[in-house]
Amino acid sequence: MSLSPPLNLADYEALAQPLMHPAVWDYVVAGAGDGITLAENRLAFDRIAIRPRMLVDVSRIDTTTSVLGASVAAPIMIASSGQHGAICAEAECATAKAAGRAGLAMVASSGSNRTIEDIAAVATGPLWMQLYLFPDRPRTVALLQRAEAAGCRAIALTVDSPRWGRKERSLRTEDQFNWPAQANLADLPPATAVWPDGGAPATWADVDWLRGATRLPILLKGILTAEDAALAVERGVEGVIVSNHGGRQLDGVLASIDALPEIVAAADGRCEIYLDGGVRRGVDVLKALALGARAVMIGRPVLWGLAVDGAAGAFDVLDILRRELTSAMALSGRPTIADIDRSLVR
Amino acid sequence: MSLSPPLNLADYEALAQPLMHPAVWDYVVAGAGDGITLAENRLAFDRIAIRPRMLVDVSRIDTTTSVLGASVAAPIMIASSGQHGAICAEAECATAKAAGRAGLAMVASSGSNRTIEDIAAVATGPLWMQLYLFPDRPRTVALLQRAEAAGCRAIALTVDSPRWGRKERSLRTEDQFNWPAQANLADLPPATAVWPDGGAPATWADVDWLRGATRLPILLKGILTAEDAALAVERGVEGVIVSNHGGRQLDGVLASIDALPEIVAAADGRCEIYLDGGVRRGVDVLKALALGARAVMIGRPVLWGLAVDGAAGAFDVLDILRRELTSAMALSGRPTIADIDRSLVR
Amino acid sequence: MSLSPPLNLADYEALAQPLMHPAVWDYVVAGAGDGITLAENRLAFDRIAIRPRMLVDVSRIDTTTSVLGASVAAPIMIASSGQHGAICAEAECATAKAAGRAGLAMVASSGSNRTIEDIAAVATGPLWMQLYLFPDRPRTVALLQRAEAAGCRAIALTVDSPRWGRKERSLRTEDQFNWPAQANLADLPPATAVWPDGGAPATWADVDWLRGATRLPILLKGILTAEDAALAVERGVEGVIVSNHGGRQLDGVLASIDALPEIVAAADGRCEIYLDGGVRRGVDVLKALALGARAVMIGRPVLWGLAVDGAAGAFDVLDILRRELTSAMALSGRPTIADIDRSLVR
Amino acid sequence: MSLSPPLNLADYEALAQPLMHPAVWDYVVAGAGDGITLAENRLAFDRIAIRPRMLVDVSRIDTTTSVLGASVAAPIMIASSGQHGAICAEAECATAKAAGRAGLAMVASSGSNRTIEDIAAVATGPLWMQLYLFPDRPRTVALLQRAEAAGCRAIALTVDSPRWGRKERSLRTEDQFNWPAQANLADLPPATAVWPDGGAPATWADVDWLRGATRLPILLKGILTAEDAALAVERGVEGVIVSNHGGRQLDGVLASIDALPEIVAAADGRCEIYLDGGVRRGVDVLKALALGARAVMIGRPVLWGLAVDGAAGAFDVLDILRRELTSAMALSGRPTIADIDRSLVR
Repeated sequence: MSLSPPLNLADYEALAQPLMHPAVWDYVVAGAGDGITLAENRLAFDRIAIRPRMLVDVSRIDTTTSVLGASVAAPIMIASSGQHGAICAEAECATAKAAGRAGLAMVASSGSNRTIEDIAAVATGPLWMQLYLFPDRPRTVALLQRAEAAGCRAIALTVDSPRWGRKERSLRTEDQFNWPAQANLADLPPATAVWPDGGAPATWADVDWLRGATRLPILLKGILTAEDAALAVERGVEGVIVSNHGGRQLDGVLASIDALPEIVAAADGRCEIYLDGGVRRGVDVLKALALGARAVMIGRPVLWGLAVDGAAGAFDVLDILRRELTSAMALSGRPTIADIDRSLVR
Repeated sequence: MSLSPPLNLADYEALAQPLMHPAVWDYVVAGAGDGITLAENRLAFDRIAIRPRMLVDVSRIDTTTSVLGASVAAPIMIASSGQHGAICAEAECATAKAAGRAGLAMVASSGSNRTIEDIAAVATGPLWMQLYLFPDRPRTVALLQRAEAAGCRAIALTVDSPRWGRKERSLRTEDQFNWPAQANLADLPPATAVWPDGGAPATWADVDWLRGATRLPILLKGILTAEDAALAVERGVEGVIVSNHGGRQLDGVLASIDALPEIVAAADGRCEIYLDGGVRRGVDVLKALALGARAVMIGRPVLWGLAVDGAAGAFDVLDILRRELTSAMALSGRPTIADIDRSLVR
Repeated sequence: MSLSPPLNLADYEALAQPLMHPAVWDYVVAGAGDGITLAENRLAFDRIAIRPRMLVDVSRIDTTTSVLGASVAAPIMIASSGQHGAICAEAECATAKAAGRAGLAMVASSGSNRTIEDIAAVATGPLWMQLYLFPDRPRTVALLQRAEAAGCRAIALTVDSPRWGRKERSLRTEDQFNWPAQANLADLPPATAVWPDGGAPATWADVDWLRGATRLPILLKGILTAEDAALAVERGVEGVIVSNHGGRQLDGVLASIDALPEIVAAADGRCEIYLDGGVRRGVDVLKALALGARAVMIGRPVLWGLAVDGAAGAFDVLDILRRELTSAMALSGRPTIADIDRSLVR
Repeated sequence: MSLSPPLNLADYEALAQPLMHPAVWDYVVAGAGDGITLAENRLAFDRIAIRPRMLVDVSRIDTTTSVLGASVAAPIMIASSGQHGAICAEAECATAKAAGRAGLAMVASSGSNRTIEDIAAVATGPLWMQLYLFPDRPRTVALLQRAEAAGCRAIALTVDSPRWGRKERSLRTEDQFNWPAQANLADLPPATAVWPDGGAPATWADVDWLRGATRLPILLKGILTAEDAALAVERGVEGVIVSNHGGRQLDGVLASIDALPEIVAAADGRCEIYLDGGVRRGVDVLKALALGARAVMIGRPVLWGLAVDGAAGAFDVLDILRRELTSAMALSGRPTIADIDRSLVR
């Protein structure tokens, strides 16, 4: 069966594999440990059944919404992920062009292969920067100031990585590839210490520090419990990203879509809730929104798009997902994002 | 293992595949998206366990019942489906002959390859017409008047297709076949607009309009929630067809048999409830009736019968299902349709 | 891997298949319809978890019990099944010898390939006769009188077969074998009518008639609901056999072990409850007894034993099961049958 | 894919198989019966979802804890298992060296291939001795006195083996290997009776006797119910090992991790609760501790380590598990063992 042109994100996955170096492929698709959480991220979505409403006027479907106050074409964002430069020469600049063309927001990784300034220069949609705290604060402050100066609209602090997860599939092959450098680091003050435990720790005290170190809104990326969501709200963060890091940190943690309801309940509207992990179809976006997410983020599929056709491929991945969401909204009787509520899922 | 003669509907499926053009096969068997709802339609039936009663007098099994007041030989109907002409030269006329010979009711698709008049001319059982509303009303009215004049006894308005579902398997091959024309369209007033969004939208206002545009009973085909069933009853429709369009519209919606109980409860006897989706055995008919359906409708298996042996094949499919139902009623201690109640399933 | 000597009943199944005519094999292993109930009979056992007690004195394990007042070596019986003569020249006489040697009770089928007198002549354990009611009563009475005269201790009236179930796998091959005759029929008065509907119907009125026609205890074989168990107790029957006929009658009915608890509750000690369907391990016997069965019956495995080594093979099957039960009782801290209670399963 | 160097315990399993005699392999990996409990031991772990906490200070992860008052590097112990001498020339002495190097406790089997004195001589971590009661008490007393003299710190009485479980896979091949002798037996008084029923029975009276026969703490190994845990506490034992003997005794009993919660509740802190069965990842240790275990024990993986590289391999197995636990504690926000509580699992 010919997969050309790709009809869905799974087609992009199939097309991307032979185009990517095996070590890069392993890095991208790997989960931690036995891959139980990686699989659950998908299975948990498929266990949720939609209850569609009929005979609603769906002649105009409006997928537009806002993320931290910025208008976007759909509640779909590009999750932060690394190594775009191992997949596409233009690296994160290609990704940013795709996001902008699609009218969507993107989270750039602090470990990107292009500098945040380069990415921001081509980004036309809202740009957030993901952050791993460096042990020495001046280095972190310098990066934050650069992000602010470049026009980033929010900082997504990764909170689930005090140690790097063991992606064993990737550990077996990572030495077979010459990975591109992390561009932001080259222009940062030299490090007085690297992450001593093989990971980027952060604590609630660091969140308070970060609040004082930047004027940008702060999101915590990697929250999986109601308890932590409540603490996040108390600290005054603007958003929480429900995520298990694509199943790449602690294998055995619950699926992100399964964690979402308790977090939405705990936040109770006091900050915005985002979700990544397992979103592969427009109907998955619908399910996440029905359970209270403001928007979803996708990671791996964007990289498959980059591998297949650079910025155009990444755009097409986003566009397929947006079109699937449009169709799913029409077929479930929800013409606007505001119409999507808890009664939509069983 | 020889499959001749076919013992069950699965045999017909196996026999039909090599007899059908691959593109037609793909069109018929495809589900939307990842096929989750398509699979669930079957799995949900198999999860329901029968509690059979013994030592009842089952010397005479009576499968007769009525659908919208018309007597039929069994609570089994032919669901509306398209492209019979791609499978069998006689197209829907063969299907109608099979239904009549079996004493069963048939729903003709408004997009049939034979005109509603041709189908009605050979139909000896009750004939209903499925309807997609055209954007221009005169065209719709003309079709309704033709259906009434031809003797159709009800109109089944499809309410789940404001957009056509993406049946990706079929999208990959549909261009390899020269599909026969929709016969009713040729004799209708020319369209001033086609469906602009790739689908046939309908709203509750359209249901009210339809009530005024025809003297026939109206059923809403594609209802999947108690909320919509309650609205349907309020609007005074005569029936609801619980259906997810054979898993061909929005992938991820619940199985039709799983939606049935809440809809039966909401309707509370104020209109008739039908079900399609996943019925492949007489015991499935029994389960659907135990959960409150007045009758079930079958789609794909009738097409397999057509492919294998035209009207005779379609009749045999219906007859196998009716005989299986007869046996299932005897073996569960339910000699008449009225004896089938909720206590029959766990 | 060599399977000799067979260690368990699955080994007997593997050894038996090449020794049996394919049509006989298909007849024996077939379930009705899609085999869902056949599979569930096993799966439902495996879903039940044992809660074993430790540090009990299990130096002497006593598997003896009684069935309808007759002492037996273990709560394991041979279920009635047909066509022993198609598997072993000695037919049911071999089976009866095996049961006697094992100290276990056997239910002879009324359609056996040897006469009830021949079977009784070699039986040294308790012998019951299964009964299908003939449409003409004199013929039935004659068979009952012969069973009584031959020393049968109970009549197990099959109540689940007003129609013969469709075992499709067997329907495809049954004509390829010259099946041996039903021996009892040859010596009965000629039939004025055969079963007109392809099955042996029975009603509660027939149960009352049977009560007057025999002085033997009566069991109803094929009860699957509390409602019918309650009616059976009201009619004064001595026992109920919870059974779905090995998944050979109505596919889709619940597993017999899943039906057991509600039946035990409904009978409330007023008659004995037996179970067949899916028993393949000693631990299955333990589970059934924990849920309230007085004894279990096994069907297909006895036939595999017959195929492998005639009476000796059938005995070994029974003996393996009894030894597995002995071990399971020891390992779960239940030295006697009376010690097995509901707390043993989760 | 190269498995060298082994990254996880599954790698050790794959590397070990070709290095072990097939009969030894079968003996080690076999479960009783159909292997249902063996499989459930793993599946039950994987069904438990972790709820990780973020932004905790995990800069210092402390896996140290104590077992019966003795400090150990982690809540991971080596379970008692037999036949180390069939895998590695140094037998249990290699295992003890590995445990000591890892700072972990080990349970030596009473049926070890090296004497308890030899094992104790090389053990630098806490050493417990597993005990099967001999029918003649002097022989048992002699073994207990030797264990005490050798420095063992506790006796783990196996209570689940009044009969040896039937590990059928092993029964088929066990004759193909010349098994090494049980070293302790050679130096014990000659037996006046061997285990007459093929197993080592023990009763609550024996527990009382054992209490009088040794000054060492006593643990009961093989408890699976709250009822038995309550009795154990009443008898004053110091610990309970929740275990189904690696699925090697009664197939069909519940998974040990599923039995844990009710046992922890019944013991209510009055004795220490250990668990073996299915632990293959650091996150499994975390789950068991969250559900109330003081430490887990691992069996088969240590043998794989022995097969691959003797004491060094066994150490590496323990070290991988400890490092995985360290990472899992960091990634779930639990820097110390005391921080691991019930809220960590769903």
